[in-house]
Amino acid sequence: MSKKKDYINPNLKRGKNFTGTRSYTAQELFDGLKAGDTIDLARAITLIESNNHNQQEQAQALIQKCITTEHNSIRIGITGVPGVGKSTFIETFGMHLIQKGHKVAVLAVDPTSSVTKGSILGDKTRMEQLAKAKNAFIRPSPANDSLGGVTKKTKESILLCETAGYDIILVETVGVGQSETAVHGMVDFFLLLKLAGAGDELQGIKRGIMEMADGLVITKADGDNLNMVSTAMNSFKRALHLYPPKANGWSPKVLSCSALEKTGIQEIAKLIFDYVLFTKENNSFFAKRIDQNKEWFLSTVKNNILDSILLKPDNQKRIAKYLNQIDNNKIAPYSAAIELVKQISYTP
Amino acid sequence: MSKKKDYINPNLKRGKNFTGTRSYTAQELFDGLKAGDTIDLARAITLIESNNHNQQEQAQALIQKCITTEHNSIRIGITGVPGVGKSTFIETFGMHLIQKGHKVAVLAVDPTSSVTKGSILGDKTRMEQLAKAKNAFIRPSPANDSLGGVTKKTKESILLCETAGYDIILVETVGVGQSETAVHGMVDFFLLLKLAGAGDELQGIKRGIMEMADGLVITKADGDNLNMVSTAMNSFKRALHLYPPKANGWSPKVLSCSALEKTGIQEIAKLIFDYVLFTKENNSFFAKRIDQNKEWFLSTVKNNILDSILLKPDNQKRIAKYLNQIDNNKIAPYSAAIELVKQISYTP
Repeated sequence: MSKKKDYINPNLKRGKNFTGTRSYTAQELFDGLKAGDTIDLARAITLIESNNHNQQEQAQALIQKCITTEHNSIRIGITGVPGVGKSTFIETFGMHLIQKGHKVAVLAVDPTSSVTKGSILGDKTRMEQLAKAKNAFIRPSPANDSLGGVTKKTKESILLCETAGYDIILVETVGVGQSETAVHGMVDFFLLLKLAGAGDELQGIKRGIMEMADGLVITKADGDNLNMVSTAMNSFKRALHLYPPKANGWSPKVLSCSALEKTGIQEIAKLIFDYVLFTKENNSFFAKRIDQNKEWFLSTVKNNILDSILLKPDNQKRIAKYLNQIDNNKIAPYSAAIELVKQISYTP
Repeated sequence: MSKKKDYINPNLKRGKNFTGTRSYTAQELFDGLKAGDTIDLARAITLIESNNHNQQEQAQALIQKCITTEHNSIRIGITGVPGVGKSTFIETFGMHLIQKGHKVAVLAVDPTSSVTKGSILGDKTRMEQLAKAKNAFIRPSPANDSLGGVTKKTKESILLCETAGYDIILVETVGVGQSETAVHGMVDFFLLLKLAGAGDELQGIKRGIMEMADGLVITKADGDNLNMVSTAMNSFKRALHLYPPKANGWSPKVLSCSALEKTGIQEIAKLIFDYVLFTKENNSFFAKRIDQNKEWFLSTVKNNILDSILLKPDNQKRIAKYLNQIDNNKIAPYSAAIELVKQISYTP
């Protein structure tokens, strides 16, 4: 790769982008990814998250290149409410995997609470070691508009990380809203973190999330907490028992760990590798990925159609006009929608 | 209204629909709604749920008529996991309101579990009294395809019920998936039902749902259960206390009831009427409805665009072709999506 060296006057050479930040072609970024360059990985993710039309074409070319490469990764979804110790767990778990020779990427799916309208994902400063580790890559969640949904480009980001040689992809989310369902739809193994004891009603496990979990881990299993952890483990084992068996034959397991005392971490890694072995042997691992690919296809189609129509300046103006009329009770929202749709046409 | 009388040969008169079921015009249905005809109400909801193009035009005309009418209704969302006694509560609560002179409509938003792919909403046979009551209307949830989402037409159904004179609209949902957020976005008051005692981890209150609740009711407060109920009430009061105050100034309340012994029901009704008074006085009642109308507008726009594009036979064929290629690992899902979108054009 020559691109790290030709910084003297790259714009002259390429004849475009006469600003401080220059664009990278799909080929350049792809070469960077194949070489394991984390700066190019970050650039590539920024590229695919862009709404700019030209950049989207580059992004598409890049993804097409990445898809042709063979990957042998494990995608792990990690969820749990704020306070369960998710960042601390990911730090400890990630460092353990790196010591075992893996390359670990951490992506975050950050929904915004529909009530508080704010972001609820913890900051990354609690992953200090991992942030510095050579074989780790941490990407915070993008600030997204609501048009395309919160998880618009996470699947694509996973693919980029895999191309850059990361063989363990951790996708972090929080126990609120629809993000779990989305993350469950893009990972091989779904891990649910729980606290033992008091406050169960607040840390809330909805039935849907328990159903999705392939493994459940009680965090903070140390010190005075140990008795409560053992009670909680039994209670969750009973609870998991109440669900119908999973179609792939896997029985979800309950484990505990202490990120503080670094106990239980190895067992969790073993559980996940056992799961991968088990589901690869009965072929459900690959069947699940194909199902996820179909969902990926459909959601990309829907997002692209809506984006290319609704982000047009003309249509943005129309939308603003109707929102204003609705604000003043001058038009019924349903009628406004029908009127607007009649004014819209779309050609690719 | 003559339409009840001209059944002798309605097709001859209208020159269309030579089948057993004939279509009704928007005006006919509107007249029926204004007269409080429940059969026309059921027909009207079926009409707006239809994906047929001609019917959609009628539906739109009907909704436009309904919007011009003044309504003075209260929309109440009711959620809680299966087993909490939702149907029994709605039966008792609905009958109480009818005895107080209200007309009560019950709508259901029925998400399908992303894991089991099945419907999880209880059947209506447990609302025996309400189903027979003169001033009640119960509409089970529609069987929806996944294209437009589970809550596609619930807002419109609420409007139809209001036009037919129902002044209390109960919108029922279950504690799984994204349905709560959707229902919260279309009601004035959001009520969360909870069981006391054992099994808290299974009936699961996610943080997001607690945040949404304007009132929380512990059900089955009778017999041996009373001690546990009192403990649970205190625990939920403390829990609710931990949330930031609501923007509208309302502090969510915790109550209990027994549908069996018919206790606590009156208090719940009072709580909701107090809430309506409080929020109407500080104007947040109307501000919330306007916000909801904007959301209604945006989601209707998105659903209509996607439906009119993706339901076209040509595009259905294209989608099927790509899904088949993805199944056989012949194309990357992202590339397939981009290819497909390039083949699609849309004119209203």
